[in-house]
Amino acid sequence: MWNVVLVKDKKGILKAMEEKPDAIRRVWVREGYERVCNDIITEAKAKGIPFKIIRGDEFVRRFKNSSSPVFLEEDAVSFINPDEFLNRITHLQNPLLCAFDGIYDPQNLGNIVRSAASLDVDGLILPGNRSCSINETVIRIAKGGVHHVHIIRVTNIPRYIEAMKNKNIFCFGLDERGTRSVWDVDLTGSVCLVFGKEDGLRRLTKERCDDILKIPTSHDFPSLNVATSVAITLYEARRQRMGQNNTRYRMH
Amino acid sequence: MWNVVLVKDKKGILKAMEEKPDAIRRVWVREGYERVCNDIITEAKAKGIPFKIIRGDEFVRRFKNSSSPVFLEEDAVSFINPDEFLNRITHLQNPLLCAFDGIYDPQNLGNIVRSAASLDVDGLILPGNRSCSINETVIRIAKGGVHHVHIIRVTNIPRYIEAMKNKNIFCFGLDERGTRSVWDVDLTGSVCLVFGKEDGLRRLTKERCDDILKIPTSHDFPSLNVATSVAITLYEARRQRMGQNNTRYRMH
Repeated sequence: MWNVVLVKDKKGILKAMEEKPDAIRRVWVREGYERVCNDIITEAKAKGIPFKIIRGDEFVRRFKNSSSPVFLEEDAVSFINPDEFLNRITHLQNPLLCAFDGIYDPQNLGNIVRSAASLDVDGLILPGNRSCSINETVIRIAKGGVHHVHIIRVTNIPRYIEAMKNKNIFCFGLDERGTRSVWDVDLTGSVCLVFGKEDGLRRLTKERCDDILKIPTSHDFPSLNVATSVAITLYEARRQRMGQNNTRYRMH
Repeated sequence: MWNVVLVKDKKGILKAMEEKPDAIRRVWVREGYERVCNDIITEAKAKGIPFKIIRGDEFVRRFKNSSSPVFLEEDAVSFINPDEFLNRITHLQNPLLCAFDGIYDPQNLGNIVRSAASLDVDGLILPGNRSCSINETVIRIAKGGVHHVHIIRVTNIPRYIEAMKNKNIFCFGLDERGTRSVWDVDLTGSVCLVFGKEDGLRRLTKERCDDILKIPTSHDFPSLNVATSVAITLYEARRQRMGQNNTRYRMH
């Protein structure tokens, strides 16, 4: 059942009910804990989310772990419709996005999801047929990150880059052979970072990007893993934004 | 035979002969290519490194790949003696080092070695008995990085931190609960970055560090993979050093 995940912390459950009620299958509450879980039950009723109160022995049998009196069962990943997402990001202040030209290694994808969640990315854009699925390995490696990041699957990455540019999002391709260093470029505006496979960006994708950037590395050994490149570039964007009066980041 | 690796590019072979002749087992040259490999043969003779010229069919059988007319066979990893390394780093200008409190996952260690090589680290310090070995997985994931970074195995990390501090190396521990952000701290001097396992630094190690730093992450999901944390912190150090008149980095 890799396509179903359980959330057991109350904060995480309330967040999921707020942000993606459609992905929730059911909330399970342990009998006798209705009062403790009152906020969750009230919210479920208000949102029309199915919930069930079950006896303690059944609860323990079902969830093994009995450390929490409430569990939320949801679809592992809720993909956002690409057009809907495009409309949504125009309302965000300086969104930070990541797009991939091709990503097949589940270890890398899992690490990317984890870093994206941890570094507050507004959306991960994956190519429909040039990407591995969000499978068990990805979910395990992401350590819960899949619940903290929006994932968008698009059929054609170059065309989606074009659509983002029409929404005034600046698209930077990342490539070893890039001309400017990530630290020399302003990444504080509306930005999408575009990454290729280990062997670099595809020509078609590269041509659509506004500019090609590189992470300065050793002359003798310029090889960085793609998940590492993603994390470093996201960190750089975050660092630059932190320097600004950006309330979104100031809170943390 | 995971403890033996082959180098086939001429630049890599000359570099290995220059930097660690003791780790080299033999240089193999394909018959008929002695002139092309003249610089390598001359160097091997000068350094007393064994070399052998073999017939084309034997060469292809032995190395499968016949794209290169010369192969170097060397020990996969050459560890440096910890005391010798301490003496050596005092001669370096502002060395950048990494130490680990415990690192067991070969995927992570492989990625760390790769990033360290790519971001010009002067030495990776591993705990003798709280680390996985430099095994096949580590070597594969590091994609050749093991030949570009010095690895030091020490028996006691807290004690080695003490020894580094006596050599005027500033030791920064990295921890989610750190007080200062990596971008707020000067990392341009003689620095060793100290990392723990996924669950943070051990108390004993933490106490020896001069200061504890953190990578600012999302409030909701502060979880970063250890290899990712290493790469980000090394990038930050490199970025800061690039801003200075540091000829070592200016060259690249």
